[in-house]
Amino acid sequence: MRQDRHELSISTRGRGLYDFTDQARHWVSASAVSDGLLTLFIRHTSASLLVQENYDPEVQRDLERFFARLVRDGDPMFEHTSEGSDDMPAHVRAALTQTSVSIPVVDRRLALGTWQGVYLYEHRTSGHHRRVLLHLIGD
Amino acid sequence: MRQDRHELSISTRGRGLYDFTDQARHWVSASAVSDGLLTLFIRHTSASLLVQENYDPEVQRDLERFFARLVRDGDPMFEHTSEGSDDMPAHVRAALTQTSVSIPVVDRRLALGTWQGVYLYEHRTSGHHRRVLLHLIGD
Amino acid sequence: MRQDRHELSISTRGRGLYDFTDQARHWVSASAVSDGLLTLFIRHTSASLLVQENYDPEVQRDLERFFARLVRDGDPMFEHTSEGSDDMPAHVRAALTQTSVSIPVVDRRLALGTWQGVYLYEHRTSGHHRRVLLHLIGD
Repeated sequence: MRQDRHELSISTRGRGLYDFTDQARHWVSASAVSDGLLTLFIRHTSASLLVQENYDPEVQRDLERFFARLVRDGDPMFEHTSEGSDDMPAHVRAALTQTSVSIPVVDRRLALGTWQGVYLYEHRTSGHHRRVLLHLIGD
Repeated sequence: MRQDRHELSISTRGRGLYDFTDQARHWVSASAVSDGLLTLFIRHTSASLLVQENYDPEVQRDLERFFARLVRDGDPMFEHTSEGSDDMPAHVRAALTQTSVSIPVVDRRLALGTWQGVYLYEHRTSGHHRRVLLHLIGD
Repeated sequence: MRQDRHELSISTRGRGLYDFTDQARHWVSASAVSDGLLTLFIRHTSASLLVQENYDPEVQRDLERFFARLVRDGDPMFEHTSEGSDDMPAHVRAALTQTSVSIPVVDRRLALGTWQGVYLYEHRTSGHHRRVLLHLIGD
């Protein structure tokens, strides 16, 4: 039994879903661990993680439309406005999605379903440099 | 330290919560790992996982009513409609709930609270065959 | 490779976010495992877990305001009312947030981002004694 760890840096260009399945897959395939569990952890509270459909880009745009309507920028209910009208909505969106996701690894491959991709969900309107920790444990 | 892995097949009959606590419990009880961590991972993006109350079936029906109102089938905002009016809502519901859940295991038993059950949440209106990966690591 | 486990008891005084980062941090720092993965699991379905901003307390109040508006106490749609008008909303809020969260551990420290804290989110209006399991695995 052994473990491995890596930090990915992902640059975003504002709100939306950023597929980083290939980066995760590439790191896992080169690891000494061939079977085990991969855990992804995002070190931010205004961006989050999501496993979602990777086939039709409409799905990602519809998801974003849904969240934009559910959590309105500049909603007068929010008092935390010092960092911009999109900052508190970003925290709410992060709360509604995931900070960590764990995925089994089989034969150095992520055991994702056929249509599953791994996404960073940027909730701020401006671009950011985001850090995602990858932790792999197994044999 | 050792690990074990298993894939559950769960057939659904359309939208709603399907309790698979007993299947997970049964597999864990027969494993060589007696203390550790169980991770559940669902290999789909239109069904998801949830740990919820298992005592009163009204809770599950109320949950479904809430999600059906929050994410309307056929909402004209959605452009991804080629797979049916319930498909994009299914992806949104999955994003709002869980793709993976980890539960400590003590003495070959899931360390669930008294009223907790483990559910697959089917978000499509028609029945599907769903696959959930179980990964157990420990001593 | 080794593992460690601990149960935290957290007393709440009704709805809101309760920061228990220091308790988790303290237990991790004293463990024999210095590098690995910490998993938090809450043994309840009317309280949940959240990694959120720990800098400005307005964020936590705004989060609560958002959830209170999204899931109304006493909503006539809910049939599960025998345990009070805040009970079913509590289950819905728990479904929308997290039951388990996993955080990498590096040099006996949680690898949280600068502004991240670990919270128990109490969804009932009255105080409760909540139990959170901590599971740590690594070297």
